[in-house]
Formats: sequence, structure tokens, C-alpha cells
Amino acid sequence: MSSPYPTLEERFHRMAQIRDAEGVLHWDMAVMMPAGGATARAEQLAVLKGLRHGLLTAPEIPGLLDQAEASSESLDPWQRANLAEMRRLWTHAAALAGGQVEALSKAQSKCETIWREARKEADFGLVLPSLETLLERVREAANAKAGTLGLSPYDSLLDEYEPGGRAAHIDPVFAELEAFLPGFLNSVLERQASHPPVLAPEGPFPVRDQRNLARHLMETIGFDFGHGRLDVSHHPFCGGVPDDVRITTRFDEADFSSALMGVLHETGHALYDRGLPKDRRGQPVGEPRSMAVHESQSLLIEMQVCRSPEFIVFAAPLMREHFSGSGPAWKTDNLIALQTRVERGLIRVDADEVTYPLHVILRYRLERAMIEGDLAPRDLPAAWNEGMEKLLGRVPGNDALGCLQDIHWFDGAWGYFPTYTIGAMMAAQLFEAAIKADPAIPGGIEAGDFTPLLSWLGEKIHAKGSVTSSNDLISEATGRALDAQSFTDHLKRRYLGQTNNSLR
Amino acid sequence: MSSPYPTLEERFHRMAQIRDAEGVLHWDMAVMMPAGGATARAEQLAVLKGLRHGLLTAPEIPGLLDQAEASSESLDPWQRANLAEMRRLWTHAAALAGGQVEALSKAQSKCETIWREARKEADFGLVLPSLETLLERVREAANAKAGTLGLSPYDSLLDEYEPGGRAAHIDPVFAELEAFLPGFLNSVLERQASHPPVLAPEGPFPVRDQRNLARHLMETIGFDFGHGRLDVSHHPFCGGVPDDVRITTRFDEADFSSALMGVLHETGHALYDRGLPKDRRGQPVGEPRSMAVHESQSLLIEMQVCRSPEFIVFAAPLMREHFSGSGPAWKTDNLIALQTRVERGLIRVDADEVTYPLHVILRYRLERAMIEGDLAPRDLPAAWNEGMEKLLGRVPGNDALGCLQDIHWFDGAWGYFPTYTIGAMMAAQLFEAAIKADPAIPGGIEAGDFTPLLSWLGEKIHAKGSVTSSNDLISEATGRALDAQSFTDHLKRRYLGQTNNSLR
Repeated sequence: MSSPYPTLEERFHRMAQIRDAEGVLHWDMAVMMPAGGATARAEQLAVLKGLRHGLLTAPEIPGLLDQAEASSESLDPWQRANLAEMRRLWTHAAALAGGQVEALSKAQSKCETIWREARKEADFGLVLPSLETLLERVREAANAKAGTLGLSPYDSLLDEYEPGGRAAHIDPVFAELEAFLPGFLNSVLERQASHPPVLAPEGPFPVRDQRNLARHLMETIGFDFGHGRLDVSHHPFCGGVPDDVRITTRFDEADFSSALMGVLHETGHALYDRGLPKDRRGQPVGEPRSMAVHESQSLLIEMQVCRSPEFIVFAAPLMREHFSGSGPAWKTDNLIALQTRVERGLIRVDADEVTYPLHVILRYRLERAMIEGDLAPRDLPAAWNEGMEKLLGRVPGNDALGCLQDIHWFDGAWGYFPTYTIGAMMAAQLFEAAIKADPAIPGGIEAGDFTPLLSWLGEKIHAKGSVTSSNDLISEATGRALDAQSFTDHLKRRYLGQTNNSLR
Repeated sequence: MSSPYPTLEERFHRMAQIRDAEGVLHWDMAVMMPAGGATARAEQLAVLKGLRHGLLTAPEIPGLLDQAEASSESLDPWQRANLAEMRRLWTHAAALAGGQVEALSKAQSKCETIWREARKEADFGLVLPSLETLLERVREAANAKAGTLGLSPYDSLLDEYEPGGRAAHIDPVFAELEAFLPGFLNSVLERQASHPPVLAPEGPFPVRDQRNLARHLMETIGFDFGHGRLDVSHHPFCGGVPDDVRITTRFDEADFSSALMGVLHETGHALYDRGLPKDRRGQPVGEPRSMAVHESQSLLIEMQVCRSPEFIVFAAPLMREHFSGSGPAWKTDNLIALQTRVERGLIRVDADEVTYPLHVILRYRLERAMIEGDLAPRDLPAAWNEGMEKLLGRVPGNDALGCLQDIHWFDGAWGYFPTYTIGAMMAAQLFEAAIKADPAIPGGIEAGDFTPLLSWLGEKIHAKGSVTSSNDLISEATGRALDAQSFTDHLKRRYLGQTNNSLR
């Protein structure tokens, strides 16, 4: 009999190839596929997913894990971490019975389909019955996992996206943000109102010019087009595989900034994927650590770096050049102000970094209450509007602008929302530590040289894959456990600082 | 226990989904993938192919086939044909031991890689050792299959591409063509020389205009862009899946005709794929019948239809419009002559329909001799040149223009070449029968209405999938078994006919 650990490596390598194939098929579906290919593609994806699940929950896996763990002293630290990740993935997958997986998957597909219609019609009642069914299935799955993992039902959902993530850690941090942000937001808006109005550069901005500028900045930051692409899709994302990273965006000819910042955000994701440890490709330990860590990398690039005065000083001449821009709206100071405008918006995906956590806190509270049985889906719209009023001081005019706006719940992704704000806090804490470790970073950014920053991130985060926990990853990189301090410091400096809100 | 036939349908459906996923990944590799993604993609494809082979050769399959066959009187004719196809696929796959499959696959990859270099350098010696190894592996596989299938080694290779195809059927037809074509070619070239020279329209022809014209003609013929795409790749092909057919081409700004005829050729393939029986998707009986039948559909559209005077009468005004063409070169008669030029070329893929079978006959003879041990790879260049001299009256100046020109042998596709010319004969016989059955077809083509032709092809060929053998498919559609008569009649009419070489 072959030894258990190499056998497991071979198995997980195969699963990773199937998962990567699914990644390419998903990208193609969003970017290239004609509408008529949808049914065939759904079948291909379902079969691949099923094969992968079958390999992960094959009857011999628990025995192989037991044996490998029993002789784990012969493994090196990366292999031991890999084995622990294998165990984690198997535990999550095996916690659900086959019938549960199928029932959940069907409830998700049905609810998501109806949600698209309900959002279009701004009619929550339309999707309520399927949301109720889906929530039942999700709660059953959460309870089943809770039993196996020894966690609360909510934590057992969160743990899938954010290994080691716990409501008990999130609650105090979110409470701190909730105490700080609404008042801070008032001050920022007052200060913004006291300044001269920000001028929006006038378009149209041809797609070709926008694409050229985006590609130029992507390459400057470190994106390698020999290992990736930039394309167009309805919902921007970063897909593909580490050696072939596919970024998408959606160009708006009236506003170049939104697609550009979106592309830079996805570039942050892409750099993480590209920088994952090459000699661990196809193994769980070579995967991104968590959704929050992934989001920290995109937010670090977009929010911390690309909306900083340093970056705009570097990028403004390129913007003027690509769009033949001149006049007051194209002045560097105005372009800086443009990238840091704050407003009380209703839509999360359009939100600035000051209000974003408030959107997330609302969703986190509501989804936990629904999972814990304290909020019924039929009471969601009222609870949503009440929370928006309290946190952001605005009430949406209809549910399409309210509780129907995000796909997550209707698609079965419960326990995902908090990772956005954990990621924002990680981004601030990491960037602060990076500058402290290498004071050349801000000057590099202003000169268009991202090597110092990328080299620090590559070493401290990207190349670590999943060899260590999220918590240890952040502690080791920044010298302390994750908290909200760097994030709120960053907001204060950028939005209430003196005229010079630079990184230095 | 569930009943064997539905179980087999479920298994083969899963294999088909994996194969379709591979199809999309192959398309992406040729059209979209950045170079740096090659290694990862090769691993994904290898794993999917391995999974598919594993499902097909799983230990329970022969028992399921036996049981299903034992109770096949309860199946309808489509199901019985499906079961026979399953048996055929299993027999081919199971004839080789696991080690043989792997050894063959490695020898193919190695030889193909070295062939690319050897062709570039026009150095046959470079690839000779790996070709010798590969041929050994192919002969081992052919011998193993021959034992199981009760066929000769060459026929057992041919049978994979052309189920039921046998050298004993091909030999007399190819002998007939070989007796006819060289003399016919002389007459055509003499006649061509006696006519005023054909004028080549002068470019450049911008890619955008070429693409627009190609798309327009594709749609006119019946290609549905809601279920397919047209893109660019180095080697043109038709890929994807029946509900999402992906055609590729390569545009040359100096010559619009080559890409256009290429696109129309691939459109013929695409229409076949699209027209396969929808309620048999994912089952072997719903697949294209054979490589020759597939090629018959592309050659029918390209050679029989799109190089006919009727089609050019319809398309010439569109060509003039898209390229703002005027003057003698753009006259319809000249454009007709342009599409039917004949020459003694060295390269198969550039060959016209008169000389093409001579290229194929040469390869068929040589590959059979190599499989049967009558020709050693080291003697291939001399045998090639001798054959070219005899069949086409020309000797290539180097092996890149000779025996190194095609990928097939170096990639392990032995027994494939004859399907090109079988397809050409099928195309002529089918088109003749179609016009006889519906005399409105030529007028429809001239008016840009392909409905009569497509409706006949759809019913007689496309919708039949693999429910009947190639031979029966052609006999039932045309009233007689396949022979060379319609093909040689077509050539005589088109190339030696009176001034009017029209379809009517």
C-alpha cells in the first residue's frame, strides 16, 4: 500500500485541477459564452462539482487522513499544514449528507433565479417563499456542521469562508466601528461640504482609452499579461487560476473612474493569486488563506494605495494623457478629491470606504439573526430599513434598493458578508506595517515603482498561502492581532486630516 | 439495483459533460489563454481526460453492458443504437491496458513537441527518433485493438475515427481516384491556362470588414450567434459544444478569400453540431456519426455550395460592398474563377478540391505501410517525395514542405487521413441527392435562402446523430452506397464543364 500522505496529495491535486477547470468555465460563462450555451454549461459545471465532491468524500479519505495524522512527525511544517487543511476541507464536506448537499444546491438555484426577477420588480414578496425554503436548508446545514465542528451554527457557516473566523471576535470590533462611524461620517460630510465642490471630468471616455490606461496601470502595479487577461463582464470579478488570472470589469463611457478603480481592486486580488507559493500549486496549503485575506489584498491596492495622494500624483498625468484631459477638473488635487468622496449611499457595491462597514454590519446582524431564528425572512424588509435608518440615516425607497440588492443570501452565501470589513481592517493594518517596515513604499508609489510594496506583501502574505492561520498571518506580518485601530486611524487621516493626507 | 440501461445512460451523460468541458478548455487554450497558462491548462486537461477514461473503463461497465444487451428487446431503436455505441466506445477504450494508454500519451506529447521544432528547422532527422518510438507505441496499440476487434491493425485505428471504415472499402475507391485525377488535373490546368488570367482583388482587407462579411454570410447560411461565436486562432477549427459552437479563423489582410472560405467550411461543421438530435444530448447516439461525415458537412458547405457560381452570384455584391471593391477583379465572373483555381501545390491544407485527394491518397498509403511494418520512418522522406512526384508531379524542396507538414502522425492520429477524402465524396453524393430531392436548392442559394438545403441536411444527416452507420446514413440519404461517382462528376462539371458550370 502506498503511504497515506502522498496519496492524499495526489487526490487533492486532482480535485484542484477539476476546481481550476470549473474556474475557467465560470470565467468563460461570464465573459465569452453566448446565451444559448447556458444550459449545457450548467450541466458541465454540475458534473465537475459532483466529481470533485465525490473525490473529497470518498470512503477511503477519513482512513487516509487518520493514518497520515498518526505519522505526521515525518512531515515538514508545510506538509503538516497541508494535512490540517485537508482535514478541514473534508470535515466541512463530510458534515453534510449527500441528500442535504443536493437539497441545498436546488434551493439555492431556485431562489437565485427568482431573486433576479424579484430584484428587477422590486418585489420582495415574490422571492419570500423560496428564501424561506433556502434559509431552512441553510439552517439545517449549519446545524449539521455545528455538531461536527463544535461551533455555533453561524460560526460553522462563517468558518467555511473565513477559517477560524468567529462571531465572538467580530462582535466587539464591529461594535467599535458602529460606535465610531456614524459620528465620523457626519464630520466627514460636514468637512466635505465646507470645501469647494469636486469637479467630475467630462466624458465621453472611449472604452479603448479606458482599457489602455487600465492595462498600463495594471502592468505598473505588477500584473503580468503573460499570465492573465483583462476582459469585460456584467459583474466584475477576478477568476481563472494562479498562472492565468482573469480580471473583468464593466466600462462606463460617462465615468472612467469607476471601472478604473474596479480594475485596480481586482488587480489586488490577482497579485495575491499570482504570488501564492508555486511549489504548492494544487495543494490546499497553497490556496489563498481566506476570503477576508483575499479582500485585504484587493482593498489594500484599491483603497489604501490607489486612492492615496501619492498614487494619484503618479496616475494623474497618465489620466490626462489617455483622455486628453485639461482644465480644473483634471488638476491633480481635484482628481485626489474625486477618489475620496464620501456619501450616504443605499448600495453597498457603490459605497466608499467610510460607509462600507456600516452596510456590512447591517447585513452581518441580520443574517446572524436569521440563522439563529431570531428574525423571520418575512420581517427582513422592515428590519433592513430600520437598520439603514439607524446606521446610515437613510431609508431605501424600495426593496430593490434595500434588502434585495445583494445576491449573497439568495444564492446561499450566508456568513460571507463580514469578510469584507475584516478584509478592510486587515488592509489598513497591513499597509501601515508595510510602510513602517519599508519607508520607501510611499515614495515608490508616487514614482510608479511598486516593487517595495509588492516585495513586502509577497513575502508576508502571498507566498504564505495557507501555511498559517489568518490570525497568525496578520500578527506575524504586523506585530499584533487584527483590530480596528489602523483602519480608523487611516480614515481619520485621510478624511479629517490636514490638507496633506499623504501616506508619509 | 437500478436497471442497467438507465445506469449506463447516466454514466455516459457524465462522461459527455467532462468531454464538453474539455472542449471549452481547448477552445480557450487556442483562442484566449495567455502563454503562461499552458502548464496549468495541460494539467487540468490531463486530469479531466483521466477521469473520463476511468469512468469508461470502470470495472462495472462490462457487466452493465452485458445485462443491458441481454434485455435490449425492451429498448427503442434509438436506445438500442445508443447501447451499441456504448459497447463500441468501451471496446476501444478497454482494448488498451492502462500502461499502454499512458505510454502512448507520453510518446505523442514528446513527438509533437519535437515535431514543431523539426518542422521549423525543416530537419526530419530531429524528430525521427521520437517518431520511431511513437510509431512503435501506435503499432502496439493497433495490435492490441486488432485482437479485440477482430480487425487488421490499420482498420482498428481507422475504426476509431470512422466507425465501420475499412481499408478494403477505401482501396478500390482511392484506386479509382488515383487513376482519374492526375490526367484530369492536366486537363484542368491546360484549360485554365487557355482562359484569361484570374485577377486577385487588391487589399488590404481590414480584419473588421472581413469579420463583418464572414458573420453576415455565416448568419445567412444558418449559424446562430445566440449559440456560438467566431474568433481568431492560429489553426482554424470548430470547437465548443452543440449548443455553443465556437468557430475560429485566421485573417490575412492581403487576402480575404482564404479566411472567408475557411469560416464557411467551419460553418458547415457547426451546422452539423447544432443540428444533432437535441433529445439525445450527452448520449453516444446523439454524437456526430464519424469524422468523414463531419468533413462531408463542412465540404458540402464550402466546396459544393460556397464555391459554386450560385453562391458567388449571391455573395459577390456583399464582397464588393464590404470591401468597397470595384473594377475587373471584383466582377462576379472573376470572383467565381478565383474560388475554383486549381494548382499543383505542395501543401495539403492549402490544396484545392481537385488535388486534395492526391495529398490524402499519398498519406493513406504511407501510414498504412508504416503501421503494417512495410515502411520504416527513416525511409519516409524518400517515399514521400517519390509519391508526390508520381501523384502530383512535384517534389518538395525540403521536408517542411513534405513529410513534416502535417501534425497528424507526430501527434498520434494514425488512420485519420482517409476521412478527408471519404468526406469529400460524401459531400458530392449528398449534395447531388439534395438537389434531386429539392430542385429549389440552387435557386435558394443564389437568393441567399439556405432553408431548403438546411432542411434536407437537417433531416437526412444532422438529426440522425449516430443512430445508423455511416454507410446506411449515406445510402438512406442518397439511394446508393458511397462511391466516387458524384465526386468525379462534380469535378468534371465544375472544372471541365462548359462556360456554365452552375448547379442546375
